[in-house]
Amino acid sequence: MPPEGSVGVVSPKLARFEEPIALASGAQLDAYELAYETYGTLNAARNNAVLICHALNASHHVAGVYADDPANLGWWDNLIGPGKPVDTDRFFVIGVNNIGGCHGSTGPSSINPTTGRPWGADFPVVTVEDWVEAQSRLATQLGIDRFAAVMGGSLGAMQAMQWAVSQPARLAHSIVIAAAPKLSAQNIAFNEVARQAITTDPDFHGGNYYLQGVVPKRGLRIARMIGHITYLSDDAMAEKFGRDLRESGFKFNFDVEFQIESYLRYQADKFAERFDANTYLRITKALDYFDPAAARGGNLSAALEPASANFLVVSFTSDWRFSPARSREIVKALLDNRLRVSYAEIDAPHGHDAFLMDDPRYHNLIRAYFDNIFRDISGS
Amino acid sequence: MPPEGSVGVVSPKLARFEEPIALASGAQLDAYELAYETYGTLNAARNNAVLICHALNASHHVAGVYADDPANLGWWDNLIGPGKPVDTDRFFVIGVNNIGGCHGSTGPSSINPTTGRPWGADFPVVTVEDWVEAQSRLATQLGIDRFAAVMGGSLGAMQAMQWAVSQPARLAHSIVIAAAPKLSAQNIAFNEVARQAITTDPDFHGGNYYLQGVVPKRGLRIARMIGHITYLSDDAMAEKFGRDLRESGFKFNFDVEFQIESYLRYQADKFAERFDANTYLRITKALDYFDPAAARGGNLSAALEPASANFLVVSFTSDWRFSPARSREIVKALLDNRLRVSYAEIDAPHGHDAFLMDDPRYHNLIRAYFDNIFRDISGS
Repeated sequence: MPPEGSVGVVSPKLARFEEPIALASGAQLDAYELAYETYGTLNAARNNAVLICHALNASHHVAGVYADDPANLGWWDNLIGPGKPVDTDRFFVIGVNNIGGCHGSTGPSSINPTTGRPWGADFPVVTVEDWVEAQSRLATQLGIDRFAAVMGGSLGAMQAMQWAVSQPARLAHSIVIAAAPKLSAQNIAFNEVARQAITTDPDFHGGNYYLQGVVPKRGLRIARMIGHITYLSDDAMAEKFGRDLRESGFKFNFDVEFQIESYLRYQADKFAERFDANTYLRITKALDYFDPAAARGGNLSAALEPASANFLVVSFTSDWRFSPARSREIVKALLDNRLRVSYAEIDAPHGHDAFLMDDPRYHNLIRAYFDNIFRDISGS
Repeated sequence: MPPEGSVGVVSPKLARFEEPIALASGAQLDAYELAYETYGTLNAARNNAVLICHALNASHHVAGVYADDPANLGWWDNLIGPGKPVDTDRFFVIGVNNIGGCHGSTGPSSINPTTGRPWGADFPVVTVEDWVEAQSRLATQLGIDRFAAVMGGSLGAMQAMQWAVSQPARLAHSIVIAAAPKLSAQNIAFNEVARQAITTDPDFHGGNYYLQGVVPKRGLRIARMIGHITYLSDDAMAEKFGRDLRESGFKFNFDVEFQIESYLRYQADKFAERFDANTYLRITKALDYFDPAAARGGNLSAALEPASANFLVVSFTSDWRFSPARSREIVKALLDNRLRVSYAEIDAPHGHDAFLMDDPRYHNLIRAYFDNIFRDISGS
């Protein structure tokens, strides 16, 4: 049973696109599919659609559960549903799996029509710009000219920013949560270690492991553990695990001793079972590449000139992956362009993952912002 | 040629101990050897000896160079030498490789006399307490009853603290740089990822890789990269690498693109060539276990009651591995015991690795502190 207030049982859909898409890398996909889900109803004016963009480890499964997998709750189910901050009684909410993903959209594990075998290493590297282009074609196919809001956290928030730059006429609000205008050297470094762990795993086979009957699980495990540490704050880890031991006393061997070790190994095992390594590589690359200011000589204000959306920018005090200072850079550049920006720095202990948490101050803020959006579209 | 002011060409020595050592784990080594180096001259009063304890990746090679390896400069050569802050014209300085190490002291790659083969997985897990006990026996063998100072950075500083607790009569000063009184959950988490990378490398063979003719290089590479990120500050990485590319423009593949990637891969390759994986595992465990307060119900002040040394505690503002707050915990506990403590928080940008850097404010502080030690022993 889904939790009370959830959108309940949902079904993923598949949209097919036969028009080729030219990618930032210079490669082209002749055709592709996007897996997506929708919650709520598109109104007659077609102006109540909200697009949710996913981050590194997530998918189009944003809310609700599947009939045949009732434990698989959407990753933002606490925020999105009937009566929730993003109220599906008012809004038509769309979750979409990006190109290069591993949850149903065309990606490295899909069949390459040219060869009849999985793409593997031949699947192109994709960027945030590519994803926004593909998402905009999905919007067109669904009959949505303009989104009430495009919204995301972390890498999802980078897509919401890119929407405002690439497709300014097609969104009223951009909601940018726990983001950065570009990765720092340290951010890239953590991504690179994860990639090295995957690509040096003997089961990686240069990316063509699908036909070998193996998966580079060792590398995926390490990648997930590194990621996980950067998603949590030092304080949150101290609070949740501290130096607690799983059993009393040290064992003086290399089995699990501390609870934090047990937790990391469990998360790593779970992730390596369900996530595709080639997708992980490509999504971390999309993160590394994202830097809208680069084409304008590093001037973020200039890069955001095309934007006309209203913005909500949210950061979390304990987020050391993308600290509040990174969000303030975005706010400053938006204000330089005389855009309407609301900014909130939420005093939350959870670190980067706070954007996924059910924090009342955070959720009340999102609720209030969407109340205003709803008032605007109801009056229009 | 060693740099000007260096102690110059040095030679490692080997001390053998036939008296069994009982380890914290319950295991025992019947006999063992310690590799060490000395610089300067022990004075007639035998009161000018300084012991340098090494951290995770270092050894007994603290200063100078080897005749047959002139590029291999001691890891603290910038601090220790004739006329340097720790002046070898005044002090008799000893560097020692710890038990479990891989630079000449008895460790996992040594021959187990019982089997005639390398110890490998059978080499016991060692602790900071074990190291201090072994170091104190080396002091006895060298005719040193009492050190003028025991000194270290990071894990080396934990040994300097432990000396003050375990052997209070045998040191006048404990110099504790870039330390923490125990690892946080986040610290342990990073260590655990490194260990998982090593132990899941197919070339690890359960720790008995010596006889297989392989080395778990993939795991060691990942371990080193993770470590390296935590040794540098975000700002130092931004300053040194930023988002600089190795070539112009993105390649849209998984080769090196950013300079930070190139640097990490290079450091990883170098480390995997020279460091033993079983040693890495054991040293990270020694870090995880270190927690002198644990035996006193978590009360660090109570744990430090046996200490009588004078203390110099130094932290660095940009160190996020062991932040200044962790050093302040130590200072507070020392003051609770009415001990003489000097504390300095150095405003340095380099992160945890600042303790290895040639920062004038830091080095002048060490120089002044050692000037005072020299005045004391000269007057005695």
